[in-house]
Amino acid sequence: MPQDDDQQTSAFDAATAVRRGPDRGFVAELDPGWDVGGGILNGGYLLSVAARAALAESPHEHPVALAGSYLRAPAAGPATVAVAPGPAGRTLAHAIVTLSDAGGAALTVQATTATLTEAAAERELPMPDVPPVGDCVSISEHAHLAPPGLAVPGLVQRIETRLDPATAGWAMGASSGEPVLRAWLRFADDREPDPLALVTFADALPPTSFAMGRFGWAPTVQIQVLVRALPAPGWCLVEARGGTLAGGWHDEDYTIWDSTGRLVAQSHQLARAPR
Amino acid sequence: MPQDDDQQTSAFDAATAVRRGPDRGFVAELDPGWDVGGGILNGGYLLSVAARAALAESPHEHPVALAGSYLRAPAAGPATVAVAPGPAGRTLAHAIVTLSDAGGAALTVQATTATLTEAAAERELPMPDVPPVGDCVSISEHAHLAPPGLAVPGLVQRIETRLDPATAGWAMGASSGEPVLRAWLRFADDREPDPLALVTFADALPPTSFAMGRFGWAPTVQIQVLVRALPAPGWCLVEARGGTLAGGWHDEDYTIWDSTGRLVAQSHQLARAPR
Repeated sequence: MPQDDDQQTSAFDAATAVRRGPDRGFVAELDPGWDVGGGILNGGYLLSVAARAALAESPHEHPVALAGSYLRAPAAGPATVAVAPGPAGRTLAHAIVTLSDAGGAALTVQATTATLTEAAAERELPMPDVPPVGDCVSISEHAHLAPPGLAVPGLVQRIETRLDPATAGWAMGASSGEPVLRAWLRFADDREPDPLALVTFADALPPTSFAMGRFGWAPTVQIQVLVRALPAPGWCLVEARGGTLAGGWHDEDYTIWDSTGRLVAQSHQLARAPR
Repeated sequence: MPQDDDQQTSAFDAATAVRRGPDRGFVAELDPGWDVGGGILNGGYLLSVAARAALAESPHEHPVALAGSYLRAPAAGPATVAVAPGPAGRTLAHAIVTLSDAGGAALTVQATTATLTEAAAERELPMPDVPPVGDCVSISEHAHLAPPGLAVPGLVQRIETRLDPATAGWAMGASSGEPVLRAWLRFADDREPDPLALVTFADALPPTSFAMGRFGWAPTVQIQVLVRALPAPGWCLVEARGGTLAGGWHDEDYTIWDSTGRLVAQSHQLARAPR
């Protein structure tokens, strides 16, 4: 695939674009192509749309902490994105963002924006040892091996997802005993990663219960995404770990490293347990 | 200390009480005794006040996911707590809570409430092996050994904090190389833990940088607290782990188990790096 030098034309930038609407808010066009199956739009994608609106009202350049509550699944199509700015200073700025479709509010986000630098980490979690991209398993190319009834969602056509073979057994009919998924991620049109992309990557893998052979949908209730550094060009390594599963609730942690091995983002989510 | 059977009279319940004020909001009296030093009120304490207001407007009994953004440190004394209810159903309810003092908004919280049950976990992180409470190190009793200039804050007079000796070296002048703290926690007046108490416990240890001999204050910017189960009576074990420290930002994860070894709460926070 050719390198796309004009990032404004990438699928991700087009799908997350916001423009000023009436009443000091923003409007967006939610793209049906970023679904996780069944017409449900990916939560990380929606969070990136909200983050873009927060940045448009912030003196800072990057989303560093986003807490999103998913109220209902919005429909693809026109949406409004209201930004209520909070205190803003030299180090960071706060805002509350509400993304709504015709049915009402769908996602509320507490957004902290700041300006990330190239400073090296004083301490960070090292990148796990994973085979190179070429030795990993493409989800979209193995769609025919997926469990019956599982269509390949739009999301994995827009984000190339290459699973570490050690966590890819489920895609070939052999599930594991551990709720862990690791994959190299990159936009299919080679648009390079940046903090906004990391917000989508931080919720872009299938539910970790897939690794254990449970293929039900696990709707996110609340997610926190932290962007910790500016990612280098190239593939990002994304690791998702399921935590405690109890009383109908499940939590998952994501850690993301860039192509140089630097830790660049983290997320923590509470979801309803997969059915 | 005698067992206090009337939980309404406990220091925690009194300090987190909210009552309906004018304009459909709530009013609270922020108690100066829950400080972390320098007159700064503990973030977990403030979050519990906000959670109590969310519960007062919810059909559900327990806070299960709270995302809080700390805008500024509020003063002790009168505060208002405004609750904007979101969608509410049989499984969960959403709300946005704003806690303000005379200076304006200090804390905004996305609160998801639900009703936790006694159901056993299908999978959970096991409790680490820690010496019994009697073999652990009381922070308040070792205050005289604290680094110069570090007063014992009100928080550790209200929450008995017994450090695992393996992570208590810093309190006796011998810091470790790892940003990890583990401690048994219980209210000093023996008020038993419940989901609201866990919200305070989820931010009740000193900064994990203390374990490494760095005693600067590390103000929380955003925290997510997940309450996963109803805690049994008795001491809770709280483990705090520092994560990545880079570009002036630091993250910390908390995991909390009850006296039976059950995982009952988790938190994830982004803080400014300790000075």
